Amino acid sequence: MPATPPRRLADLPPGLARLCLGVGAFAASQGCDFAPLRVLVACSGGADSTALLLVARLLTERAGGYIIAAHLDHGLRPESSADARFVADLCAALDIELACESADVAAIAKEHGCGLEEAGRLARYAFFERLRQERGADVILVAHQLNDLAEDQLLRLVRGAGWPALGGMRAFDPDRTLLRPLLLTPRREIEAFLRGVGQSWRTDETNALPCATRNRMRLDVLPALTRENPAYLDAAARLWRQARLDAGHEEEQVRAVLSQLPPAAPDGARLLPAEVLAPLPAPLFLRVVKAALDALGPGQALADSLFRLEELWRGRACGKRIRFPGDKEARIVKQGLILQVIDRKKDCG
Amino acid sequence: MPATPPRRLADLPPGLARLCLGVGAFAASQGCDFAPLRVLVACSGGADSTALLLVARLLTERAGGYIIAAHLDHGLRPESSADARFVADLCAALDIELACESADVAAIAKEHGCGLEEAGRLARYAFFERLRQERGADVILVAHQLNDLAEDQLLRLVRGAGWPALGGMRAFDPDRTLLRPLLLTPRREIEAFLRGVGQSWRTDETNALPCATRNRMRLDVLPALTRENPAYLDAAARLWRQARLDAGHEEEQVRAVLSQLPPAAPDGARLLPAEVLAPLPAPLFLRVVKAALDALGPGQALADSLFRLEELWRGRACGKRIRFPGDKEARIVKQGLILQVIDRKKDCG
Repeated sequence: MPATPPRRLADLPPGLARLCLGVGAFAASQGCDFAPLRVLVACSGGADSTALLLVARLLTERAGGYIIAAHLDHGLRPESSADARFVADLCAALDIELACESADVAAIAKEHGCGLEEAGRLARYAFFERLRQERGADVILVAHQLNDLAEDQLLRLVRGAGWPALGGMRAFDPDRTLLRPLLLTPRREIEAFLRGVGQSWRTDETNALPCATRNRMRLDVLPALTRENPAYLDAAARLWRQARLDAGHEEEQVRAVLSQLPPAAPDGARLLPAEVLAPLPAPLFLRVVKAALDALGPGQALADSLFRLEELWRGRACGKRIRFPGDKEARIVKQGLILQVIDRKKDCG
Repeated sequence: MPATPPRRLADLPPGLARLCLGVGAFAASQGCDFAPLRVLVACSGGADSTALLLVARLLTERAGGYIIAAHLDHGLRPESSADARFVADLCAALDIELACESADVAAIAKEHGCGLEEAGRLARYAFFERLRQERGADVILVAHQLNDLAEDQLLRLVRGAGWPALGGMRAFDPDRTLLRPLLLTPRREIEAFLRGVGQSWRTDETNALPCATRNRMRLDVLPALTRENPAYLDAAARLWRQARLDAGHEEEQVRAVLSQLPPAAPDGARLLPAEVLAPLPAPLFLRVVKAALDALGPGQALADSLFRLEELWRGRACGKRIRFPGDKEARIVKQGLILQVIDRKKDCG
C-alpha cells in the first residue's frame, strides 16, 4: 500500500478521474447521488470494495459527503484477520472511520439451516443495516460490479427467472437503502484503477473454487460466453439497462391497475373485477395477478400456473380454480377473479 | 426400421399418442393447426425430423391433411447419400411423397462468402420455399425442438439480444409460412417416442464437434446450466412463453403508434411528432423509434445509441443528432424526431 492513497480527484491521471466521475454520474442516474451524503461503505478488502472505498472517498471529499467504512470478519478462513487488518490500515491511510465486527458465520449457517455463503450474506447485511441506523447513514454502498452482474444474470437464467428479473440486481434499492455504484464497471477497469493509483488489495482464494453455483458461473459459463463474444460484458450491461427501463414501466402499470381494485373482503379475499381485467393485455394481466397474489402473503406464484390461469380466464372458465404456493387460490367467477388464502382446516371441515 | 411404422394414433401406446396430440395442440395454440392442411415436412433423417415426419403423418391422417416430405442432400459428408436413402425408405414405408434434391453447399458458401453452416441453411430454406410454392403447400414444418430453443436463447444472449428477442425463435412465422411444432418438446421425449415405435434415425456426427458457437453452446454451456438446474429446459420453455406474449403485445403497441405518424416526406425523411412521442413510456419510445428506423432500410439500430437518443429526447436536446448503421440519422427538432437516411455524397458536397 502506498503511504498516500489519492485524496483528491485532481491528483489522479485523467482516465482514472473520469472513471470516478462516471461512477458518481451512474449512481446519480439511478436516483442516488451519494457524493454529498453520509454513506456507509461495505469493505471486505477485495479489489472491488477497496476500489469502491477509494472512489467514494474521492467523490465525497469533493461534494461534502462523509464516509463510514464497515468490515465484517466472517471468521471462516485463516486469512480473515489479515483481511480485517488490511481494511483497518487502508481506512487509517484514507482517514476514514471504520466499524469492524466479527461474526460466527458457521454458527449462523447451522442455526438457519443454510449454506455458509448464504449465512455470510445474512450476517453482513444485518450488520450493515444495524450500523447504518446507529450512525445515521443515508445509504449503504456495496461493491458489486459488471462481472458480478453478468454472473447474477446467468444465475437467474439457470433458476428460471422471467423478464425483467432476468436483467439482474438493481443498482439502487431504496427499500434496503442499498446502492451499487460500480454495477456497470467491469472488474478489469476496477483492477486497472487500483494498479493505476498503486493500491494493493486482498484476494479471496475461495472465489476460485467451483463449490457454489455462482462460482461455477464465474469460472466456467461466463468465460465460455466471453470467448464467443469478447464484448459480452457490454451486452450484459445493455440487457440490464433494458430490464431496468421495462421494470420501472411495468411497476407503474401494475400499480395503476391495483389502485383501481375494491378493498379486500373481511376474510382477506380480493376481487379483481372483470371490468378492470378485461382491457388488460395478457402480459399485464399476468403481472397484475402475480402482484395481487404476492400481496396475499408468502409463497411465489409459479409462471406455469399463471399461464394456465390466463388461458382459463380468456376462455371465461367460470368456477375454475388454480392453487398457488402459500395455500393461495385464484377462482374465476362471473364478477371477475377472486384471490384468497384458503384456510386449510376450514377447507377440510 | 420396422416393416410397418405406426399409421394411426390408435396404434400407439397412450403416452406416445398423447405426445402426438400435444404437438398438434401446441401448433394450433400458435395459430397454425396443420393437421387438416397440405404440409411440407423438412426431413434430414435425424431423430427430430424423423419424429416430426411420423407425428405429422399420424395427425394429418386423422384430420384429412396431406404431407410432402423434402430432403436436401448437402453433399458435405460421406454419409449424406446414405441419409437421403434413409429418408427415401422412411417415406416409402409411410406412403409419403418425397422431393429430394442435392445442393453444392461448399460452392454456395464460397459464392456468398459465408460459413458452411450458414450456406446449408440458405440452400435448405430456399429449396423448401420453392417446393412449397410449386406444390401448393400451406406451411413448411421444421423440426426444431426444446433443446434447440434453449441453445438459440443462449446464442442470442451471447450475441447481445434484448427482450423479447432473447426468448428465442418463433414457433409459427406466418411471413415465412414456417412452423416448428416440436419447439417445446425436449429431445429426450423425441428419442423416447422413436424408440417407443421402434423407429431408427440417422446421426449427424458433426453435431458433436465444437466447431461452431452453436455446437459449443450445445456441448458445453447448456449441459453446465442443466447440471445446476435439472429442470432447465422447463425454464427455457417458460422464458419462451413469456417472450412470445410480450412480443405480441409490443408489436400491437408499436403498430398502433406507427399508424398515427404522418406520411414520409418526398426525400424519405420521417417525422415522429412530439405529441405522439411525448406520452410514450421509455420502453415503448425505444421500440417505436427502432421500428421506424428499421423501416428506413437495412442496418440494425444499436441499443446503446437508442438509449442515448432516449436520454437526449428526454432532455429536449434540440438540434442533437445520432447516427445509426445504414447511414441513418435521428435528429431532435422542436416538432419531434426526424429520422432519415443521409445521402453521403450530398452530406460531403
